[in-house]
Amino acid sequence: MPEKSSTSVGIDFGGTSVKLGVCRDGELLALDTPIITADFNGPAALITEMAARVAKLRVQHPEIASIGVGVPGLVDFEHGFVHILTNVPGWKHVPLKAILSEKTGLPVVVENDANAMAYAEFRYGAARGLNNIVALTMGTGIGGGLILNGQMYRGSGCAAGEIGQMSIHCDGKAGHYGNLGALEKYTGNREIAEHAVQRYAEANVIKTIEECTPKMIADAAKAGDDIARQIWQEIAEWLGTALASIAWLLNPDAFVIGGGVAQAGDLIFDPLKRKVQSMLSTVVWERLQIVPAKFSNEAGIIGNASLAADAIKA
Amino acid sequence: MPEKSSTSVGIDFGGTSVKLGVCRDGELLALDTPIITADFNGPAALITEMAARVAKLRVQHPEIASIGVGVPGLVDFEHGFVHILTNVPGWKHVPLKAILSEKTGLPVVVENDANAMAYAEFRYGAARGLNNIVALTMGTGIGGGLILNGQMYRGSGCAAGEIGQMSIHCDGKAGHYGNLGALEKYTGNREIAEHAVQRYAEANVIKTIEECTPKMIADAAKAGDDIARQIWQEIAEWLGTALASIAWLLNPDAFVIGGGVAQAGDLIFDPLKRKVQSMLSTVVWERLQIVPAKFSNEAGIIGNASLAADAIKA
Repeated sequence: MPEKSSTSVGIDFGGTSVKLGVCRDGELLALDTPIITADFNGPAALITEMAARVAKLRVQHPEIASIGVGVPGLVDFEHGFVHILTNVPGWKHVPLKAILSEKTGLPVVVENDANAMAYAEFRYGAARGLNNIVALTMGTGIGGGLILNGQMYRGSGCAAGEIGQMSIHCDGKAGHYGNLGALEKYTGNREIAEHAVQRYAEANVIKTIEECTPKMIADAAKAGDDIARQIWQEIAEWLGTALASIAWLLNPDAFVIGGGVAQAGDLIFDPLKRKVQSMLSTVVWERLQIVPAKFSNEAGIIGNASLAADAIKA
Repeated sequence: MPEKSSTSVGIDFGGTSVKLGVCRDGELLALDTPIITADFNGPAALITEMAARVAKLRVQHPEIASIGVGVPGLVDFEHGFVHILTNVPGWKHVPLKAILSEKTGLPVVVENDANAMAYAEFRYGAARGLNNIVALTMGTGIGGGLILNGQMYRGSGCAAGEIGQMSIHCDGKAGHYGNLGALEKYTGNREIAEHAVQRYAEANVIKTIEECTPKMIADAAKAGDDIARQIWQEIAEWLGTALASIAWLLNPDAFVIGGGVAQAGDLIFDPLKRKVQSMLSTVVWERLQIVPAKFSNEAGIIGNASLAADAIKA
C-alpha cells in the first residue's frame, strides 16, 4: 500500500447529483459544484459534462493524474463497465471507464459507491491501518464494502457486500428478492420509520412516517422519550444479529458504520456493541471495533480519488 | 499459485486419532497407521511420536520437504502456535511449529482443520481453479474455511469461518456462546436427530436419537419415507438461509459442503439449491456453485500437505 499518493479527481455519482472534488492523500483540495443528474439526458451527455468539469479542475490543479468514479449500482471493476444503475434512467451497459478516459486522456477507475466509501475509511478514515474491515452505509437501503487482507474485496461478480440483503430471520419479512428476513426490511430508514409509527401507536401516540426519521427518533430519545430509546434498542438487536454473523464468518478488525442511523451516536452504538458482544466468543470480540464512519458527504469523493491514485501507483 | 508442488507430510490431528500421509500434487502417496491421541499423555509425547512417524515416512520418501499439521481448534498461523484445542486434554499454548520443526529439521505449517479442508478442495478438489470459495464441514458442529481472492482467508485472529455460529433467526435457539439462532443449533448432527425424533413423534412413529443420524434419515427418504423427505427439506431451508446470507456478503464462486449431511446427496443438494436461488439476485446466483466436497477422510491430510508444499514454494 503506497503511503503517499498522487492528486486525483474523485467523482461521486448519485441518483440526484454528481459530486466532484480534487484530492491528495485523503485531503479534499477543491470541491466543484455538483452536476444535477437529471439535467443530462443519458450517459453520453453526462459523461461529456464530467469530462468538462475535470478539464476545469485541471486548470487549477494541473498535477491531477487520475480519475475515480463511484456509481450506485453494479459495475465490472476490471473493465470499468457499468452493468446497470437502477435509479438512473438510461444507464445500462455503459463503458464508463473507456469513454471518460478517452475524453480526458487520464486513467479512470470505476467502482461501486459502497466499496468507495469502505476504501475511504480504510485509507484515511475510521479504520485506517486495519486489515479486515466491513463498512456499512445505512439509508433507505443498506450497502456494504469489504476490505479483506488489506485489499478491496469485490467478489466473483463485483457484487459482494450486500449486507442489507442478509437474513436475520429465516421466516422473516421478505426482501426485494424474496429473501426472507432481509436486514434492510428491519433497519432501512423506511422500515425503521414504519416500526416507530407502530410502537408509538401502541402507546397511543400518533406519529406519521415523516416524523420518524432516524434523526427525529434520536432527538426524541435524547429528550428522554422512552419509546424512542426502545426503538434504538430494537434496531441494535436486529443490526447486531447481522454484524455478529459477519464477525463469526470474517473475524474482522472493524465495522465502520455510516449514514443516518450511525448519526444517532451512542444511542445506537452502545446497545449495538452490547448486542454484538453477547453473540461472540472472546477471541472474535476482543479484536473487534464498532465505530462510526469518519467521512459523510465527502466519503465518495475521497474514496474514489484514493482508489484512482492507488491504482496508478500499484 | 504454484502448479506443481513438492512432496510433503500431511498430518490431520483429531480428538480421537492423528492421521498421517505423504502427498505430492494432491495425490496421496502413502498412508501411515493413525496415532491414537489418547495413548500419548500431553503435547510433548504426542509431538515426539509425530516426529518419529515422519522419520519413518522419510525412509520410503526421502524427498519429503515439509510438514503440514491441521488441528481442531484455534491457532496462530503465522507462528504455528496452538492457542487451545478444546477436545484434546493438555493442548493449550503449544508452540507446535517450533517443536516439530526442531525435531524433524523440516519446515512446518500449522493450520485450523476446517481451513485445511477448504484448501484441499481449492487446490485439488471440488472447487479447483475457482477464486472465492466457502467450504463447510457438517458434523456435530459446523466448521468453515474461506478462500478469498485466491488466498486462504483467516481473519484478524485466525478465527474466521465459524459458519455454525452464524445466526439464522434473531430470536432463535441459543448457540454455545449465547448467540441466538446459531446455525449449528438447527443443522448440527445432534440437533438434526432431535428434530427428526420430534417430527416422527408427531406422526406417532417412535424413534430414538441414535436412529436418526443423517445417513439413517437419508436411507429412509430414499426408501420413500415422507417424514424423512420433509426433514431434508427443513434442513435445506435452515442451511440455505445461512448460505444465501454468505452469498450476499461475499458473492463467491462456490460453496463446497462436506460431512454427514452432504452425503445425503440430491436429497439435500436439490432443495438446498432451490432455497438459495430463491433468496438471491440473478447476478449473485448465476456464478454460484453448490457442490459436495471431493475429499472426505483424506481431506485433512491432503489439505495440510498442500498448504506446507505451497508455503515453502511461495
